[in-house]
Amino acid sequence: MTDLVGAERRTLAELTEAVRDFGRERDWRQFHDPKSLALALVGEVGELAELLQWVPADRAAEVFADGERHTRMAEELADVLVYLVTLADVVGVDLTAAAFAKLEAARSKFPVAAFQGVAPLKA
Amino acid sequence: MTDLVGAERRTLAELTEAVRDFGRERDWRQFHDPKSLALALVGEVGELAELLQWVPADRAAEVFADGERHTRMAEELADVLVYLVTLADVVGVDLTAAAFAKLEAARSKFPVAAFQGVAPLKA
Amino acid sequence: MTDLVGAERRTLAELTEAVRDFGRERDWRQFHDPKSLALALVGEVGELAELLQWVPADRAAEVFADGERHTRMAEELADVLVYLVTLADVVGVDLTAAAFAKLEAARSKFPVAAFQGVAPLKA
Amino acid sequence: MTDLVGAERRTLAELTEAVRDFGRERDWRQFHDPKSLALALVGEVGELAELLQWVPADRAAEVFADGERHTRMAEELADVLVYLVTLADVVGVDLTAAAFAKLEAARSKFPVAAFQGVAPLKA
Repeated sequence: MTDLVGAERRTLAELTEAVRDFGRERDWRQFHDPKSLALALVGEVGELAELLQWVPADRAAEVFADGERHTRMAEELADVLVYLVTLADVVGVDLTAAAFAKLEAARSKFPVAAFQGVAPLKA
Repeated sequence: MTDLVGAERRTLAELTEAVRDFGRERDWRQFHDPKSLALALVGEVGELAELLQWVPADRAAEVFADGERHTRMAEELADVLVYLVTLADVVGVDLTAAAFAKLEAARSKFPVAAFQGVAPLKA
Repeated sequence: MTDLVGAERRTLAELTEAVRDFGRERDWRQFHDPKSLALALVGEVGELAELLQWVPADRAAEVFADGERHTRMAEELADVLVYLVTLADVVGVDLTAAAFAKLEAARSKFPVAAFQGVAPLKA
Repeated sequence: MTDLVGAERRTLAELTEAVRDFGRERDWRQFHDPKSLALALVGEVGELAELLQWVPADRAAEVFADGERHTRMAEELADVLVYLVTLADVVGVDLTAAAFAKLEAARSKFPVAAFQGVAPLKA
């Protein structure tokens, strides 16, 4: 059984291990090819989108800050993370290292002076 | 500058802090309402999907195990994580704790005996 | 009431008109800004992905060819189309004309001789 | 070659036929299993989301009403439709009939009197 105390101090490597055990115990690893996991991830992102869709944009942060909607939002974000971690595991990617590296690359790509208050446009 | 040594031992709380600094330095936090971040997340999930779309399902794990495609996959997974962490931060969700809690709930919902080798169907 | 006889001969312009009436009657047009509609579209794409996620890739066409799963697939595809049509309407895009134009552009971009049996890779 | 005159009066059945020809000429139908097509659809939805992500919600309809951004939006909407039509074709769904049927079902599910100005919440 998982010790939930201090969960916020755990790493994604620990979450990966827990997700792997969960799949192994149920013999579900056979279903976890990258394309199936990507579709499962999309399914969870879809549920996240449904939570947000009709909420006024400028009130959304506040609406999800507490109460039942906060709980639902936490669950949907968690579902996305679980499939993201599972997919990363299947293709052998260290997700935390990759994210810090990507952030470092973004520091070079978007220098503070040139992008101050300017959202980068996708062409 | 971020120390990439030992990145895999870092927590999502540390990544959240780094992402927050990155946004603050560029004054980009003003764009980060939940709906905009959800759409940005969808954009990155879309790039992940494009990487996978035409690869044969039974060879995908192998195709992305190393080389250039592994690097690209790591980058796309990282992009998804960065926006997921940013969105969780904006709505005040502890993503790691939420994921461990969701996994714990899934242990009850899908008992090992009943779901051995059986993928849960979405109704 | 909609006459379902001959629905397959109707155009997207007619569907757009029906969707517009549906929204007007319920005073839902106020919720239909492009970002909200894009998130609603993502929600429906997520449900489509959930239907497909654990089905073996090489059996999926057959699995959804008839029966209950065919009906569910038809409903999810329909939901995606309805939001796509609504979004196109809000930004004033003639979806059918745009699709034929895009297909025409693709004919030039992917000449038959050079792309025979070769899936175009996303870089 | 496709005649673009009067494209808006064409049906999705005609678009389906054109898309099918396009795939056949390039021998691309071999890649078009439902899961791959769903991922391709997600890729295009991602590009749509990227166009919208940082635009203020209350100005988005206006921003995409004309000019270069209107053209880009039309292209992304078209890409989504083309993959949606391809997927529907592969599983044998009449997309137009399914959409009119779904709209008819929604008329019963959301009676005008009960849902006047009230966005239906996803539970």
